[in-house]
Parts: sequence; C-alpha cells; structure tokens
Amino acid sequence: MEELKDVGILAMGIYFPPTCVQQSNDRRKRCRPSGLGQDCMSFCSEVEYVISMSLTVTASLLQKYKVDPELIGLLEVGSETVIDKSKSIKTWLMQIFEESGNTDIEGVDSSNACYGGTAALLNCVNWVESKSWDGRYGLVVCTDNAGAAAIAMLIAPDAPISFERKYKSSHMAHVYGFYKPDLASEYPVVDGKLSQTCCLMALDSCYRQFCAKYEKLVGEQFSLSDADYCVFHSPYNKLVQKIDNDAKEKLLPFANLTSEESYQSRDLEKTSQQVAKHLYDLKVQLSTLLPKQIGNMYTASLYAALASVIYNKHNSLASQRIIMFSYGSGLTSTLFALRLHEGQHPFSLANIAFVLDVRAKLESRHGMKFIETLKLMEHRYGAKDF
Amino acid sequence: MEELKDVGILAMGIYFPPTCVQQSNDRRKRCRPSGLGQDCMSFCSEVEYVISMSLTVTASLLQKYKVDPELIGLLEVGSETVIDKSKSIKTWLMQIFEESGNTDIEGVDSSNACYGGTAALLNCVNWVESKSWDGRYGLVVCTDNAGAAAIAMLIAPDAPISFERKYKSSHMAHVYGFYKPDLASEYPVVDGKLSQTCCLMALDSCYRQFCAKYEKLVGEQFSLSDADYCVFHSPYNKLVQKIDNDAKEKLLPFANLTSEESYQSRDLEKTSQQVAKHLYDLKVQLSTLLPKQIGNMYTASLYAALASVIYNKHNSLASQRIIMFSYGSGLTSTLFALRLHEGQHPFSLANIAFVLDVRAKLESRHGMKFIETLKLMEHRYGAKDF
Repeated sequence: MEELKDVGILAMGIYFPPTCVQQSNDRRKRCRPSGLGQDCMSFCSEVEYVISMSLTVTASLLQKYKVDPELIGLLEVGSETVIDKSKSIKTWLMQIFEESGNTDIEGVDSSNACYGGTAALLNCVNWVESKSWDGRYGLVVCTDNAGAAAIAMLIAPDAPISFERKYKSSHMAHVYGFYKPDLASEYPVVDGKLSQTCCLMALDSCYRQFCAKYEKLVGEQFSLSDADYCVFHSPYNKLVQKIDNDAKEKLLPFANLTSEESYQSRDLEKTSQQVAKHLYDLKVQLSTLLPKQIGNMYTASLYAALASVIYNKHNSLASQRIIMFSYGSGLTSTLFALRLHEGQHPFSLANIAFVLDVRAKLESRHGMKFIETLKLMEHRYGAKDF
Repeated sequence: MEELKDVGILAMGIYFPPTCVQQSNDRRKRCRPSGLGQDCMSFCSEVEYVISMSLTVTASLLQKYKVDPELIGLLEVGSETVIDKSKSIKTWLMQIFEESGNTDIEGVDSSNACYGGTAALLNCVNWVESKSWDGRYGLVVCTDNAGAAAIAMLIAPDAPISFERKYKSSHMAHVYGFYKPDLASEYPVVDGKLSQTCCLMALDSCYRQFCAKYEKLVGEQFSLSDADYCVFHSPYNKLVQKIDNDAKEKLLPFANLTSEESYQSRDLEKTSQQVAKHLYDLKVQLSTLLPKQIGNMYTASLYAALASVIYNKHNSLASQRIIMFSYGSGLTSTLFALRLHEGQHPFSLANIAFVLDVRAKLESRHGMKFIETLKLMEHRYGAKDF
C-alpha cells in the first residue's frame, strides 16, 4: 500500500450571521482582559441557530469546491451547543447527503466545551490514515450558537494544510473551571480565575511535552523560530514569553514564583506582554482578524483564527509551519503542528482564501449598537410569547 | 513501517449495578414485542450514576488486565447520558490517569443515542492505524444511566477480537423517531412506529451495502453461513429472514409489499420469526444473555451482547466471524464484521470471559419486585426533598 502524503485540511469554509453588535470603547477592556481588543460580536437572530448555520456552511463548502456529496465518507461534528440530548447535529446535516442518495457516512458529534472541533478533526484525519479509509473525503463541521459561527473543513491526503502528526501533545484533566450542569439553562457555571489558571497550565503542560517529543524526533531543541505562526484558542502570551531569551532579564523578578502563582500574577502577565510584544505581532496578530470581529466562537474559534492566517497571508505561506493550541474547559487541550503547501486549484491556499471571502462577509454585516442587540436578545430569550 | 495486524478489542470489562427489578410474566410481553423475553432490568440506586459506573469499569479493567495507566494514549467515551452540557464524561475519567501522571490522553465524548459507543470504538481503532499512533493503548468506555451498565474495551493490534475493516457499511439519516429535545427532562419523545421502521430500514440499507462491498472484495455473494454469530443492538429477525432460502415459500404471500409496508406488517414479522427461528437460535440467541438480564443499556447494549457471546462460547470462537449491527435513533447505524482469535494471556478470549465473570455478577444482584423499584425511583426522581 502506498504511503499517504500530507493528510490534512484540503478546503475550508466559514459562515457567520449578518447580525453583529458593535462594541463601544467602554466595553472593550472588559471583554478582553488580556489586551486583545474586541471590535464586534456576531449573534444569531431569531431565524438562525446552530443547525441552520452548519447546514449553510456544509452546503456552501460542497458547492464552492465542487465536491459531489457522494464523495463524503465520514462527517464529524464538533459542538458544545446541546439542542437535543440524544439526536446528534450530524443527523440534521444528513439531509444534504440523503438528497443525493449517500447515507453511507460514518461519524457523529464530538463534545467537550470548545475542544469538540479539534476532536472531530483528529478523528477525521485518523480515519483517512486507517485501513477503514475507502478513498472518500472526511468532513468536519464546528458550530456553536455562542459567538455565532460555523466552520467546515474537508479532509484528505495531499492537502495544502497538512498535519505534522508526530509533533502533538495533549493535556487532559478533571476540573470545574467552566461547565454547564443546569441542562435547562443557556448559561455556564464559571470560576473565572480557575478557568484562566487551567488554560495556562494546560498550555504549559502541552508545550513541555511537545518540546520533548520534538527533541526526541528531530534531535534538537524546539524554538519559536521553528514556528512561523501560533494560533491559540484564546490568545495568551505565556507561550511566547517562555522561549524568548532576550526577555530573561525583565522577567527575573518573577523567577521565584511557583507555577500556580505565575499563572495568576497580573504583574507577570503585564511584563510578559511587553516583553513578547514583537513576537506576538509577528506570529499571533494575523490570526486575530476573525476572532476580533466575531467573538469567541467556541468549537469554531481556533479554526476561524487559522482561517484568518490563511486569508491574510495565503501568498506567502507555502512550506511554513503553524502551531495550534486547542483548549476546552473541563478540561481537554492539544498542541499540534500544521505544515502549509501551495496546493492545486481548487484545493490551493489561494482558493481557500478566495472562498473564505472574509472581508466582503464582514463588510456586509449589519452592525447594531449594544442596546439594540440587548432588546433583540430579550425578545428572543426572555419574552414569554415568543 | 511494518503493517499492523488484527487491530481491535484486546480486553473487555463490564460493570452493572447490584440492583435490579424482576419482571413478572404479565409485563414480559409488553417489554419486548419482538418475542425476546426480558427477565430482569438493572437500575442505579441513589449512590450510582453514569460517572461512578464508568470510573468503576475503567479502574477495574486496568487492574484486572494489569495495564499501567501511563500506557493509555486515547480515551473515547460513548454515551447519550448528558449530565453536563459542556464538560465531557471523559474528563471525569481523567482522575484515574492524573494520579499516575498521565495527562497526555486524547479523546472526548462521542454522542448519538445508542450509537455513541460504536463511534468511540471506530475512532479508537482508526487512531491505532493512523500515523498519530504512538504505540499506546486506546480505551473505549460506553456508559448510560438507562438500563444501567458500563463497558470498557482496550484497543490495540494483535487483538483476540479484531476488525475486518473493509466489510463495514453505514446508514445515517435525519429522522425524529426517538429524541430528547426537552433538556430538563429525563424522558425522550418517541414515535414508536417510526422508530421501529427506521431501525429495520437502516438494517436493510446497511445489509445491502455490506453485501455489495463483500461481493466486490471477495468475489462471491455474502451468505449468512459466512457469519458464525450475529449481534444486534436490538434483536430483530428481519436480517435472518432475508437470506434464508428455505423460507421463500412461506414468505411468498408478502412478496408484493413495499419496503415501507414490510417494515410495519405484523403478519410478516410473525411469519419471519417462525421461519427464521432455527437461525435465530443458532446465531443470535447466545448474545441475549446480558441484555435479557440488564435491559436496554443504550451505548453499552451492543457490546454487552458481544460480551455475552464471548462469555458463553470463548472455547470455540477462534477464527469465527461475528457480524455486529449498531443502531442509534436520529439516526446513525453501522454493520461491521469482527474476527475472533484465541489470543495470548491476559489478552485471550478465555481470560476476557473469566474477567467478565457474568454469572457471578448476575447471581450476586438484589432482585426487587416492580412495585418496590417504583417506590425507590419515585424517591429518587420525584420527591422534592431528595
């Protein structure tokens, strides 16, 4: 059997609603304490929700890349939006494929907070590399109501965005940072401080293991210069700070903190950000285009950040490496590496950027003031007659 | 790279609560319209639930097969019991592994009604066969409160219960046969007739595709004599009936029914059962030991049926083939083939049967009368002060 090459993301599509709330300067700081300003936040009006968004993004991906629905062999959905406790979102998406007579499509929903999309993606990539693979495409859909967006990704060999499979590490643990035990409520229980500590700790643990695996395989230490871009589920500068040698002097005062203390120290956070600013601008900034405009998209968040890099830089990404950090509260997290290739039309980076069409989609939105949005949301969720 | 051989289930464990309700003769018929009598039904008392059962089955499997927790690289949970809308059951199970310092374990929860366990299992097998595999074990846990049981399965190459990967077909569709749209309720919305029709239709569709794939690969028609045992999520004789040539004459009166009519005809169901009785006794009966004693275990159901075959026949299963049909409402379904091998201790069929220890576990239960159970359940779910 011929060895498969460059299994990964062959094509990408994104959908977000045309409705968004424009954040005023006053609210900016409150939304993003780590210094990344939020410009807008998408939300679903009463005619849209997680199912309609994922149907749209799936149908649109198949149409724009001219992929016959019969060529899909696995469909995996990553979501943390529960609209039914038994029936998976994947079964709703089967409507698109039943029409063309293709019901032989494996896969269900994968779920753990914002991490479900990554689980779905890894499942798809593994399937293509397994003996079960029948030559058809895998399809991953990440979708959530909160932050409101859906991402679709086609998975196959010879992909322009391929996995470097051996450089991957996970940190999974049992914690109550953010969870949703009240099944009737739209809202989570959040321990903000614990949640942030957990995310930093997870990144720390993943990064340490990632470096160890890299060193074992490559024979030399991993350094940030081995990564052209870093894409985070939530942007933290901690990772950057830990590698930057020039920064040692400025960070010396914090050397005696325990890990736990270091995750919580505001002074350290501030100093780290100053120290790492040029690295942040170089390797992270580009990925914030969509997250800044749409808000936290949960499972779609990391992949919207990846799409931002592709959209911004498709002409100069060939042979570059992107490090991805996926995080879901509860907690599950994985750090992995992607390698980029120019690709062949329609599965080229240039065409993916063209299909994503981010600027036009953002510009055609109806921006609303916060107070207007609040009224609309009250109408949607609060009014008894609705 | 050396080709991996016989990837599949290396070891199995089962846990079910010591509490069960004994069904009286009167209720027997109502519970299993298809003629398979229900003897008992397990349920969780107030000190057990989906998390405690899955912690027990996981810890017990590791202990009984002497598997170091550090040797687990992927942990996939299949469940349709939602106890938190964000935090996965998998994260609770991480408690077992964190203790031994292993947090580098991929995987989350897979969900669609009773099918989630199969999705988790297929994900694990694909992982072992992918480039991501680092030589560690995969672990699948299927667990649900309803019917009350948890199954754990260790996944690796050279397994005594291996997958015949190319003989596999799925039927997935968007239907409302059984679903749980009320997130605050323990109870599903069920359209019984539609649900049964969907299950038969799914089996029909999977079987037709399975036969087509088999014929293409093997060069001859698949016949039921190519399967030593058939294990169903829910036992239906339809499959058996469709192959049995001797039965043609008796079934002639039904030849003009449409598929839809044939799924719903009670006369056809009755005649099929008569006609297929000897095949049912030969190839299906053995798998009903645990389902008859525990009830519908949702995601664990199919694998408890498989465990029943292993427990009953471990001495004579080597080189035999088992056909498995997994079904989850909504709907998702897969028909696949397993090949059995004697295996090496501790991962032998004989030791799996020894560890399952079904008879002793069943005999040590406290059987309760229906009315006693009802009072206990009312106390648990109904009493406001509880």
